[in-house]
Amino acid sequence: MFSRNGGCLAAIVCAFIGILIGVLVGCFGVNSITKEDQKRITTYQKLIEDKWASETDETQMILDLISPTNLRNNLKELSRKPHLAGTVRDDELAMLIQRRFVEVGFDTAELVPYEVLLSYPNHTNPNLITMMDGSKKVVFTSKFKEEVLHEDDEDPDLVHAFNGYSAAGDVTTQPGDGVIYVNYGRVEDFEKLEELGIDVAGHVVMARYGKIFRGNKLLHAEQRNATGVILFSDPGDVALKGTDPEDVYPNSNWLPGTGVQRGWASPLEGDPLTPGWPSTKDAYRLDESEVPLPKIPCQPIGYDDARAILEKMGGRAPPRDWIGGMKGIKYNLGPEMLGEYQDYTLRLQSHNLLRNVNIYNVIGTIKGSVEPDRYVLIGNHRDAWGYGAVDPSSGTAQLLETARVFGQLLKKGWRPRRTLVFCSWSAEEYGMIGSTEWVEEHLEKLQERAVVYLNTDTCAAGPILTPSLSPLIWDSLVKLAKIVPGVREGKTVYDEWAAYYRARNRSSPQLKTLGSGSDFAAFAFYGGIPSMELSFRTDQNKYRISKYPFYHTGYDTFHAVDKFIDPGFRIMQGCGRLASLFLKYFADSALIPYSLQQLSRAVGENLNKVKDKGKGATLLKIYDKFPLLEESAHNFMTATAMFAQKLDSVKDTLDPVMLRAVNDQMMKLERVFIMPAGLPGRPTVRHAVFAPSQFDSYAAAGFPGISDLLYKIDDLQEEELSKRHKEIRRHISDLTILLQKASGLLEDFNLI
Amino acid sequence: MFSRNGGCLAAIVCAFIGILIGVLVGCFGVNSITKEDQKRITTYQKLIEDKWASETDETQMILDLISPTNLRNNLKELSRKPHLAGTVRDDELAMLIQRRFVEVGFDTAELVPYEVLLSYPNHTNPNLITMMDGSKKVVFTSKFKEEVLHEDDEDPDLVHAFNGYSAAGDVTTQPGDGVIYVNYGRVEDFEKLEELGIDVAGHVVMARYGKIFRGNKLLHAEQRNATGVILFSDPGDVALKGTDPEDVYPNSNWLPGTGVQRGWASPLEGDPLTPGWPSTKDAYRLDESEVPLPKIPCQPIGYDDARAILEKMGGRAPPRDWIGGMKGIKYNLGPEMLGEYQDYTLRLQSHNLLRNVNIYNVIGTIKGSVEPDRYVLIGNHRDAWGYGAVDPSSGTAQLLETARVFGQLLKKGWRPRRTLVFCSWSAEEYGMIGSTEWVEEHLEKLQERAVVYLNTDTCAAGPILTPSLSPLIWDSLVKLAKIVPGVREGKTVYDEWAAYYRARNRSSPQLKTLGSGSDFAAFAFYGGIPSMELSFRTDQNKYRISKYPFYHTGYDTFHAVDKFIDPGFRIMQGCGRLASLFLKYFADSALIPYSLQQLSRAVGENLNKVKDKGKGATLLKIYDKFPLLEESAHNFMTATAMFAQKLDSVKDTLDPVMLRAVNDQMMKLERVFIMPAGLPGRPTVRHAVFAPSQFDSYAAAGFPGISDLLYKIDDLQEEELSKRHKEIRRHISDLTILLQKASGLLEDFNLI
Repeated sequence: MFSRNGGCLAAIVCAFIGILIGVLVGCFGVNSITKEDQKRITTYQKLIEDKWASETDETQMILDLISPTNLRNNLKELSRKPHLAGTVRDDELAMLIQRRFVEVGFDTAELVPYEVLLSYPNHTNPNLITMMDGSKKVVFTSKFKEEVLHEDDEDPDLVHAFNGYSAAGDVTTQPGDGVIYVNYGRVEDFEKLEELGIDVAGHVVMARYGKIFRGNKLLHAEQRNATGVILFSDPGDVALKGTDPEDVYPNSNWLPGTGVQRGWASPLEGDPLTPGWPSTKDAYRLDESEVPLPKIPCQPIGYDDARAILEKMGGRAPPRDWIGGMKGIKYNLGPEMLGEYQDYTLRLQSHNLLRNVNIYNVIGTIKGSVEPDRYVLIGNHRDAWGYGAVDPSSGTAQLLETARVFGQLLKKGWRPRRTLVFCSWSAEEYGMIGSTEWVEEHLEKLQERAVVYLNTDTCAAGPILTPSLSPLIWDSLVKLAKIVPGVREGKTVYDEWAAYYRARNRSSPQLKTLGSGSDFAAFAFYGGIPSMELSFRTDQNKYRISKYPFYHTGYDTFHAVDKFIDPGFRIMQGCGRLASLFLKYFADSALIPYSLQQLSRAVGENLNKVKDKGKGATLLKIYDKFPLLEESAHNFMTATAMFAQKLDSVKDTLDPVMLRAVNDQMMKLERVFIMPAGLPGRPTVRHAVFAPSQFDSYAAAGFPGISDLLYKIDDLQEEELSKRHKEIRRHISDLTILLQKASGLLEDFNLI
Repeated sequence: MFSRNGGCLAAIVCAFIGILIGVLVGCFGVNSITKEDQKRITTYQKLIEDKWASETDETQMILDLISPTNLRNNLKELSRKPHLAGTVRDDELAMLIQRRFVEVGFDTAELVPYEVLLSYPNHTNPNLITMMDGSKKVVFTSKFKEEVLHEDDEDPDLVHAFNGYSAAGDVTTQPGDGVIYVNYGRVEDFEKLEELGIDVAGHVVMARYGKIFRGNKLLHAEQRNATGVILFSDPGDVALKGTDPEDVYPNSNWLPGTGVQRGWASPLEGDPLTPGWPSTKDAYRLDESEVPLPKIPCQPIGYDDARAILEKMGGRAPPRDWIGGMKGIKYNLGPEMLGEYQDYTLRLQSHNLLRNVNIYNVIGTIKGSVEPDRYVLIGNHRDAWGYGAVDPSSGTAQLLETARVFGQLLKKGWRPRRTLVFCSWSAEEYGMIGSTEWVEEHLEKLQERAVVYLNTDTCAAGPILTPSLSPLIWDSLVKLAKIVPGVREGKTVYDEWAAYYRARNRSSPQLKTLGSGSDFAAFAFYGGIPSMELSFRTDQNKYRISKYPFYHTGYDTFHAVDKFIDPGFRIMQGCGRLASLFLKYFADSALIPYSLQQLSRAVGENLNKVKDKGKGATLLKIYDKFPLLEESAHNFMTATAMFAQKLDSVKDTLDPVMLRAVNDQMMKLERVFIMPAGLPGRPTVRHAVFAPSQFDSYAAAGFPGISDLLYKIDDLQEEELSKRHKEIRRHISDLTILLQKASGLLEDFNLI
C-alpha cells in the first residue's frame, strides 16, 4: 500500500526489505514473541482462569442434561432387589456403578474392598417376640418381615427386621411381667421412670423410635441393666393419616402396621474391629471381646405388633406426652401385665450373628487439568436395609446421572480444573463403615488435598431442601440453589426453600451444621474436610416427622418413590442439578469459593449457645480464663474479615502459585479445628467446633467437647468433679489455642 | 544500511515506513505481544526458575562473605557472660539477635515469649555432697562451681553445678556407707549389680557421665529405689592427656578436676506443665504434682571430688570394664566404706527450686518471592549452662553471620524463592523447651509449609563434620559439602569428612539419622519435618570421647574455642558456609532437592536392623504377618524409584502449579510417618520410622516402636506378655499401613 506512493522499484524493494526488518525486529527484538513465549502465555492463562465464571454454556448444559427419565431408570434398577451390605446384590451394584463410570469416560474407576465385621439375623431361625399364656401356649408372635403389599416389595432376599450389632439372646420375663414402656429411651425418659420409682433393671424395655439415635436407646437400657429392648415405629410418626389399608402403603406415603424400621444400633462408627485404622485385608484387628458392642438383644417391630404388646400392659399411666399415636389403647408403663394377662410371659429371642465380610466401595475420578492433586468429592452409600429406593438409591441414581452428565462434558473436550472424585460407599447402614475405612486409609492425602466433600444420602425423601453443612460452603449452596429450577414451574430450589422458612417466620434459610448419621462423618469430624449433606426431606411445615415413613423398612420401594414421594422425579432432578453444579463450582472456580465469614460467624454463634441457660456463668466459675475463649473467637472473626478484605483487593492480580497458596491457606482452616487425639473421651470424633455431641449423635452441636464435659456434671462426687473441672479447663484452653491457630493461619498472606 | 543501496529519498522514506509496518505487524499480528503478555511471560519465568542453578554468583558470594573475623566477634560477645535460660543475660542476647535481624534487613524479627517451668539451684544455699567422720566432723565438701582458671571463666552469674529438675532433698547415709558405684547407670549396669547381689534400694548411687542420657541414669536409679544420685565426669572421657594443670584448661583442650557437667535430668521434653500444647501466657497448665518429674536428688561433680569419694569406697571390685580413668585409686562398688572410713557418713543436699519464668525465642524471616508460604528454617538454641562458647554460641555466632550474609544478598536485590525462617531458641538445655513450645504453637502451619529444618547447636566442637539427618536431605548435604572449603588448604569439608570415614575403613561418609538431644526433636519427631543437626565434632579417630571435654561446664569459654577448639575460626566458617548454602539450596531450587531414594533405602536398612540378632524370628513368631511389613517397605522402595524416574522425565516441563504440586507431594512424604497419637506409650514422639528409642534417647533408632515393645519382653508374665504381643501386632500392622500410605502418596502424579 505504501509502495504505491513511491514509484520506483527500488522503493518497493526497500519497503519490502524494511517490512522484513521490521517484522524481524518485532519478532526478535524487545517486543518479540516466540513459540515458547506463546506456550507460556497460554499455560499461564489456563493456570489462573476462572473456568466457572467463563463457562456459562457448560453450566446451562448441566441444567439441561440432568434427566428425570434417566434418574427414574437408574432408581428402578438400583431398587429392583434388596441390596444389603455384604450381599451379592450390593456387590453387583458396585460393579454396575464401576461399569457406568468407565462407560461415561472417567479416568479411573476402582472397586475398593475392605474386610469388616457386619451383623445379620439368622434367616433359618428368625428373631421373635412371643407371648405365652399361663399354660405356656404361645398367644402372640411378632412378625420379623413385612407383609408383601405390592410387587415392588416382594423378594425372598429382603433381610429380616433386626438391629445391627445388637446381641443374640433369649430372655423370658417373669409370669405377669411384660415390658416397661420407656417412651423414646432418652436419658430424661429413664430418669422420669426412676422418679416414678420404676426400675428397668432385669426387665425388657420397649421404646418408640425417634428423637435420638437408636443405638443410644439401646445403650441407655443396657447401662441400666435392662435385659432386652424392643423398638417400634409410632403411628404418630409414620401413619399420620390413619392406619387403615387405604391410608398407607401401597396406597399412600404412610407406613402400614407391618413395616419395621431396621437399623444399626451399636455405639461404634466404622468397622468395630479397626477403630482409627483401615480394615485392609491384612490389617490388625481387635478381638470381638475387646470391642464395646451391645450386650443385650434389641429387636424392632411394626406398630401392629407394638400395639399387641402395649395393649396388654398394666402398671402406672405414663406422663401425658409419652402417649403416642396408637388409637384406642390405654398406654401403661408396665412391667406388670393387665389383670387378664397376669400369668402371661413375654419372650424375646434374637439370633443375630456377626460375620466378617468383604464390602466394596467404588471410587471413580475425572482428573483435573490444572490441579490434579486437589479433590472435589461426591459420595453416597449404596447399601440398603431393603430395596432402599429413597435411602440411598435416590442418592445413587443422582450420582450415576451426575457422572453421566460430566461424561458428556468430557466428550466435548472439557476437563475440570481440580480432580472430581465420585464415591459409592458400602455398609453405611452399619455405621458409615465403607466411608470411614476409606477416609482412614487415605487420611493424610485427603487432609492435604480435599477441597470439599458432598454427601447425597437421601436425595429425595421429600420436596424441601434440608442441607446440613460446614459454614465454609454455605454461601455457595445459597448461590447455586438460586439457579436451579425447583419442583414448581417458575420457582427455583431456593424459592421453595425460602418459602419453607418464611412459613416458619424466618426471612431466609438458616444454616444447620452437620449432625451425624451419614458418610460425611469421617470426612468432617475425623478429617476436618468441609462437607455437606445434601438432602431433600419431608415438608415439616405439613408433617412434623423426623424421618420419612418408609425409612429403613421393606416398603422403601421404587413404587413408593415413583407414585408418592417424587412422581415425575423433579425433586431428584433438582438434587442432581444442584449436586452437579456444586461439583463444578468447587472444581472450576480459580479461587475456592469458601465463605470464610460464615465460618467465623458460626463459631461465634455456637460459642454463644455454649453459654445458654446459665452455662456461661458455670464455665466462668470453673475456669476464670473462659472469657479468653470468647476473645479468641472474636479475634478469629476479625482475622477472617481482614483476610476476606485483603483477598478481595488482590484476587485479580494473583499469579498461579499465589492463587494456589491462598487456596491452600483457606483449605487448611477447618483442618485446624481437628484435635489430633480427638475430643475428650472420643478418639474418632476430632472436630472441636462442629460435631455431634456425645449424648445425641444425630444432633449437630457447637463446641461438642464443652457440652459433653458439662453433661450431668451436677451428679458427680467430689473427686470426680475435681477431675472433670480440670478436663473442662484443659479443653477450654485447647479451644482457645485452636482458635488462635486458626487466626494465625490467616494472618498475613502466607507468612508466619 | 539497505537504504544506501537505493538512492532516492522515497525509497528511504518507504523503507522507514516499511520498517514501521513490520514492527507493527510484529507487535500486533499473530506473533504480536502485549504488555500484559510480557508480564505473564516474565511472571511465568520467575515461577518456574531454578534460582539455585542460575545464581552461581550468589553461591560464590556466600562462600566469600562468611567471615572468620565476624564469627569470632560474634562468639566473643555471645560468650562474654553466662546466659542461662530465664536469666537477664539470655533475654539480652535475645534482643541483640532480634536487633541484628532488623539491622541486616529481615522482613520480620520477633521476640516470642513462653511462660515455662524451669529449675534452678539455690545460690544462697548451695547443693553439697559432704562426708563426715564418726564425730560428725565434715571431712569433705564437694565444689558446686568451677575454680576460676582464666579471665574468660570468671563471672559471679555462672550458675552452680546442678541437674535441672532433679529433686531437692537431704539424704544422709548410714555410718560406714558411702555410695554404690553404678558405672554408666544403664539398665545393664544395674542388672549387673543385681547379679552381684548388690541392691541399690535405700542407697545413694554414683554414676559416671556418658553412653546414655543423664536423665535416664537418674530414672533408672529412682526406679530401683535409690535415695540419691551423684554424677561425675570420668577423666577417661574428659582428660585424656592427664589431669595435671598443664594438660588441662586453660592450657589445653581437656577438662580440669573442678569442671562439672551440668544438665537437665528429667524424662520430659518441652515445658513439663504443657505436654502437647504451647505454653502461651494463658494456656492451661498441669499441676506440678501431675507431672513425672524426678523424685530424688541428683548432683553432678567434677572428677577431683569424685575421686575423693570413690577412693574411700570399699566393697567388691567392679567388673573390669567399669574401671574408669582415675589413676591411682582402686575402684570398689560400695556401698560400705573402706575400713579406715568405717564410721564415716555421706550426705547429699540439694536445694533445687522450680520457677515459672518467661523465656524468649527470636524468630526472623526473609519473605519468599514466589512461595512465601513455604518455609526453609534454621535454628539453634541460645541459652547455655554457662558461657556456652561451643554449646550453643558457636551455632549462634554462625546464625548471626548467616543472617548477615543473606542481608547482603537482600541489599543486592536478591530474594529467596521460599521464605527463610531464622530461629533462636531458649531453654533448650531444659529439654528443648523453646523449640518444642513453638512447634506446638505452629504445628499445623509447619506441617503444611515447612520444607526443611536445619539445627546448628554445636557448630564447632571439633573439626569433623558429624551430621545426623533425615535421609531425605542426605544427597543435598553431600553435594554442598563438596563445594565448601575445609579447614585444610585445598580440601573441602567433604574431603575431610570422607578422610575421617576412610580411616574407619568406610569408602564414604555414612548417613546417621537423628537421635535426640537438640531442638530438631519437635520438628522431626513430633512434626515429621525433614531435619538436620549440623555439627562439627571431635575427631573420634583420635579420641574416642562422646562429647567435647568442656561440654556443659564453666570452662566452655571463648578462650577455649579461640585457643584450642577452633583457632582461626575455620571450622565455624565451614559450618556457616555449609548452613548458608543449605538454606539457599532448599529455598531457591525450583524442585525441592529431597533424596527420596535415600529415604526408602534407609527405611529398608532400618527394617533389616529390626530383624538383627534373632529378633526377626521372634517377631514372626509373635505376628505371622510381620513379612507384610517387609513387603510394604519393599513396595515403598519401588514406589520411590518409579516416582524419581517419572519426575526426572517430566521435571523440565512442569508448569508452576504442577511444580508446586510435585513439591507438595514430596514434602508430605515424611509427614506420613507421624502417628497422630504417638508411638506406643509416647505421645510426644510420633515419628514411627526414625526416632530415638525410649530407653536411650540419645541414640537414633529405626522403627523405635518395635524396639521399645521388644524391650525386656522376656521378663513379662503371662498376662502382660499377651498384652504386649497384641501391642506388637497392632504396631507392626500400623507400620505396614503407614508404609502403604507413603507409597500411595507417590503413586501416580497427584491422583488417588
